[in-house]
Amino acid sequence: MGIAAAVVGLGYWGPNLARNVAANADLELVALCDSSPERLARVGRVYPAARTFSDLGELLRWRVPELLVVATPVATHHALASAALRAGSHVLLEKPLAASVREGEDLLEQADRLGLRLLVDHTFLFTPAVQEVRRQVSEGALGPLLYVDCVRIALGLFQPDVDVVWDLAPHDLSILEHVIGERPARIRAIGSSHNPRGIADMAHLHLDYADGLRAHVHVSWLSPVKIRRMILAGSRQSLIFDDLEPAEKVKLYDYGVSFDTGDLEARREVLISYRKGDMRAPALASTEALTAEMRHVVAVLRGEAEPIAPGSGGLSVLRLLDAASRSLAQAGQAVAI
Amino acid sequence: MGIAAAVVGLGYWGPNLARNVAANADLELVALCDSSPERLARVGRVYPAARTFSDLGELLRWRVPELLVVATPVATHHALASAALRAGSHVLLEKPLAASVREGEDLLEQADRLGLRLLVDHTFLFTPAVQEVRRQVSEGALGPLLYVDCVRIALGLFQPDVDVVWDLAPHDLSILEHVIGERPARIRAIGSSHNPRGIADMAHLHLDYADGLRAHVHVSWLSPVKIRRMILAGSRQSLIFDDLEPAEKVKLYDYGVSFDTGDLEARREVLISYRKGDMRAPALASTEALTAEMRHVVAVLRGEAEPIAPGSGGLSVLRLLDAASRSLAQAGQAVAI
Amino acid sequence: MGIAAAVVGLGYWGPNLARNVAANADLELVALCDSSPERLARVGRVYPAARTFSDLGELLRWRVPELLVVATPVATHHALASAALRAGSHVLLEKPLAASVREGEDLLEQADRLGLRLLVDHTFLFTPAVQEVRRQVSEGALGPLLYVDCVRIALGLFQPDVDVVWDLAPHDLSILEHVIGERPARIRAIGSSHNPRGIADMAHLHLDYADGLRAHVHVSWLSPVKIRRMILAGSRQSLIFDDLEPAEKVKLYDYGVSFDTGDLEARREVLISYRKGDMRAPALASTEALTAEMRHVVAVLRGEAEPIAPGSGGLSVLRLLDAASRSLAQAGQAVAI
Amino acid sequence: MGIAAAVVGLGYWGPNLARNVAANADLELVALCDSSPERLARVGRVYPAARTFSDLGELLRWRVPELLVVATPVATHHALASAALRAGSHVLLEKPLAASVREGEDLLEQADRLGLRLLVDHTFLFTPAVQEVRRQVSEGALGPLLYVDCVRIALGLFQPDVDVVWDLAPHDLSILEHVIGERPARIRAIGSSHNPRGIADMAHLHLDYADGLRAHVHVSWLSPVKIRRMILAGSRQSLIFDDLEPAEKVKLYDYGVSFDTGDLEARREVLISYRKGDMRAPALASTEALTAEMRHVVAVLRGEAEPIAPGSGGLSVLRLLDAASRSLAQAGQAVAI
Repeated sequence: MGIAAAVVGLGYWGPNLARNVAANADLELVALCDSSPERLARVGRVYPAARTFSDLGELLRWRVPELLVVATPVATHHALASAALRAGSHVLLEKPLAASVREGEDLLEQADRLGLRLLVDHTFLFTPAVQEVRRQVSEGALGPLLYVDCVRIALGLFQPDVDVVWDLAPHDLSILEHVIGERPARIRAIGSSHNPRGIADMAHLHLDYADGLRAHVHVSWLSPVKIRRMILAGSRQSLIFDDLEPAEKVKLYDYGVSFDTGDLEARREVLISYRKGDMRAPALASTEALTAEMRHVVAVLRGEAEPIAPGSGGLSVLRLLDAASRSLAQAGQAVAI
Repeated sequence: MGIAAAVVGLGYWGPNLARNVAANADLELVALCDSSPERLARVGRVYPAARTFSDLGELLRWRVPELLVVATPVATHHALASAALRAGSHVLLEKPLAASVREGEDLLEQADRLGLRLLVDHTFLFTPAVQEVRRQVSEGALGPLLYVDCVRIALGLFQPDVDVVWDLAPHDLSILEHVIGERPARIRAIGSSHNPRGIADMAHLHLDYADGLRAHVHVSWLSPVKIRRMILAGSRQSLIFDDLEPAEKVKLYDYGVSFDTGDLEARREVLISYRKGDMRAPALASTEALTAEMRHVVAVLRGEAEPIAPGSGGLSVLRLLDAASRSLAQAGQAVAI
Repeated sequence: MGIAAAVVGLGYWGPNLARNVAANADLELVALCDSSPERLARVGRVYPAARTFSDLGELLRWRVPELLVVATPVATHHALASAALRAGSHVLLEKPLAASVREGEDLLEQADRLGLRLLVDHTFLFTPAVQEVRRQVSEGALGPLLYVDCVRIALGLFQPDVDVVWDLAPHDLSILEHVIGERPARIRAIGSSHNPRGIADMAHLHLDYADGLRAHVHVSWLSPVKIRRMILAGSRQSLIFDDLEPAEKVKLYDYGVSFDTGDLEARREVLISYRKGDMRAPALASTEALTAEMRHVVAVLRGEAEPIAPGSGGLSVLRLLDAASRSLAQAGQAVAI
Repeated sequence: MGIAAAVVGLGYWGPNLARNVAANADLELVALCDSSPERLARVGRVYPAARTFSDLGELLRWRVPELLVVATPVATHHALASAALRAGSHVLLEKPLAASVREGEDLLEQADRLGLRLLVDHTFLFTPAVQEVRRQVSEGALGPLLYVDCVRIALGLFQPDVDVVWDLAPHDLSILEHVIGERPARIRAIGSSHNPRGIADMAHLHLDYADGLRAHVHVSWLSPVKIRRMILAGSRQSLIFDDLEPAEKVKLYDYGVSFDTGDLEARREVLISYRKGDMRAPALASTEALTAEMRHVVAVLRGEAEPIAPGSGGLSVLRLLDAASRSLAQAGQAVAI
């Protein structure tokens, strides 16, 4: 028998998680939970072997799964994950980890104390593309990074509970941390709101890292075109990760600018030379990210691997989101992390 | 005989101006001027009827052209344009207008006093694409604008005399003023420098307009890919101007989000509805911008048209560049215009 | 209870059909059948309520489903579909309908005699894009068609049982018949083989219609890039259907050429005028084709709709494939249909 | 003083040739010739040092240039080039070389007899992209070629004197010969006409080479979109040359299919394995083709280089065009070269 797993929250993303739990031979989808009877019935029909619950308490009273996957609105994360941890379940939480830094810290503390795994569903970290980006950066193919520019915009789905920063930026922030291996020292956020709820639906984040590196993240729910692109300009090579490219998602450009400063006093100008070499798109595996993520979750629960997306990573993103919100509220003032 | 015109400055852009002066039947290219004998010889060979000079003073002593076209480094604009105006020439200046707001104001004042035309070469305003964007916005096809996002990045040519903001942003700033018909109240600039000259080679400008509209302009000389794209998100429709599209540079998206706030008290949530209608790329004329610009310059000199890109427009861009430079130097503090 | 349905053949396409049968509330996936125990186990795990069989005979002895969905290699279609029809099942057959025209005719004849529905899975006909193309053509938006050009190439999966024409061309041939509403009078096929099985892995089909209209279909398993594009050049407007475009799959170009032949004798040349009007991408629904197809199959089985993709359409495609094979074997000689 | 050169024919392409003659320091543009006074005046104004003639005879009586560049309609090529050769000029002829194979042979024979150079303006051979394609193929990077597919379509300019095959196919046919280094054994052409002149405005050419290699060339004046793309599928790697890509015109795909036929008798099926490696876009020089071509023409006239595009290459293309015309007239029958 596989590891018993349950999924709570069957809105937009939950059914994908359920499908990938069901498809993994080492996991067994024993239960589904959602407060909406329609959603429960619609998803439940596809997995007749899973028992359905409208309330997590009931589910846990029936049986404590080894793994609880939580894909509910963020406001409910803390309560549901706490209940599951107390009952003895490991927890995989949809991003963002929780509604506040304090809640996130509390969840980590609980999991730690109870000796349970708290994982965050930063799905992008399991894509072959992001793994390739991380490999190139960590192996030094780009040289020292000059700057990073991320754009994630579309005619988005307004979320009921979070603004565009909390909805979309976690993807970029988790990728940045995974790829750069460093956390920014401060953040500035400039955005605007065009909806009656008054929440930001378009924003720019500016992240300053210790060594002068600067990253920019642009998110919007109001763009007529969909763009999901990350530019990492490096001193040796540069890299583009374009998630909407069907085939070549990662491209390395052997381009560079170099400055001859050997004899500055004798000359009025710095000599600049440009190099425009080949572009190369490395072959990527075609594994689906959620498939790889579930395989990894199994390995973590069996003690065979260290988490790629631990709760601490989720908390780190949460701290950035929290700082971004404060900067937004202060008209773009820099906020230290 | 056509209007006698001379071109000073035969570096990168000057030869294009010379070619378009020569090709316009109402203009007569009488002289070329450049301090480099090689450049002068190379361009002069193509226009044997034009006399060549290594010094503008000499040229003006030989003959005062009705129009002097200036395409030299910006640091020399004020001296050269002043000399030409004093001699009695109308002047068409390459952007940016001058090296400082003070210099720009002085040039405008001189031209005004002498009754001469001072024009700025904001070439983009003469492209069929920008004219279409302006038409759509001014006719209200987009509805009230929500936000504007401009990206102009490439593995750029480091300029000897200006930073990336002064080099590339004038294009976007002049288009924004032309299209929106309004000047921003304040500007913030966040950038970084990766070259020994210490000037910004990557920057983000945030422009705040009086009515809450926000525009973002991203410029870079360090991007491995070339992007020249402007998104105007509107309440009714949205528009993309992608200057690198060979055929459909302007696209209108009949997309929108609307919020039902009729009975907020009775409901916990705002009802949101999305509209994803047709996309339409209006037919554009295939006129070359410089051809149209030269035709327009002739009309202005003949008193038949009001300038589309008057010196005052160039001064307006200069004020924004100057404010952007101050913001850059103050780590992104907002600077009022 | 829904209409009882079973799926036989769980290779590449069968699991998609199973998933869509399961997701349709009016259908009930009662059984799965495949000769491979691994495939049966892998797919069966996802649908525990469905009984699994390694042999169709057994399945039919256990229970005759109202609908049998067949997604096995084409060589087995006739035997499996015949068995199902004789047992009393309606049949939905993966394309191509059968391995020969004779087999296809026999299946149609049987279904007809037994009063059962024989449907063919021409999935593309259920995509919003193809429905839009058909609407535009049938409403005359393009004017009389000038020519059609279809390209469907990729680094393809070599099929065990058919050549590239039988594998890929059914998509284009079924779309062409659906959109044009007419069958070609003759066909020529020019191809080549680069594999030890000696079957064509790259081919061009030329279809001649009665009224001079000509269509070209290029298929290949050996192309480094994936292209799925159909150009319909019309006298009034032209249309592109690019299936790989994420957002604007159908584009209408208000382009045209017109010839003034009013007074030919008096002039040496025909006056040609070009019109380059707007491009428009009509909004398309985002319905998944298989979802729509299953809904339609239910309606057909309930007698509420006439089949969009009846067996006769599948037979028509089969006749073209058969003629194409004969032309291929005769070095591209035209073969009448 | 440079080599004296004259340009006859100042329609669409002639002015580009004139500009590149004028810009080359080793050539001297001494004369321009066109039967249209308007065209002559318009182009003449740009090159005041060049004398203008409405008749080639007059021009040759005034002075015999070392090089005559001919860019007139193809029907006049033979007469004009003959006159120039007889007078003692080397000749660079716009493609296609002449209006018939016989005319082309006669021109070659004359040039040969008189010891003069007859060159054909196959501009594409001088592009960095085509040179890269040729290098990759000749160095064996692609392995033995499997097939070639060329598409050159647009809403084209109907030519007054030739059909779409004679207008557009010379580009592809000259590139194919240059790159493959071999001439096809036979050709088939299938096309159609939708204009009152009755000439083909859309056509497909199929070329069969001695060793089983097959190439396809699709040309059209009626396509709503512009495509200029060449796919060379190779056994080792494949290559795409997309002339409309602004930056990466040539892409190499390290993709392949291999077939294990080691022990066919023991197994029912051939084992197929796919390789999807990296894609690479080699850096290309940014030289303008006409600039390179003029430099090459100078080298040929000085005896420093052998022609890349000799008259014999133009004649070879002419033979293919002639055979294509005969095949078109015979409904696509194969015509031996």
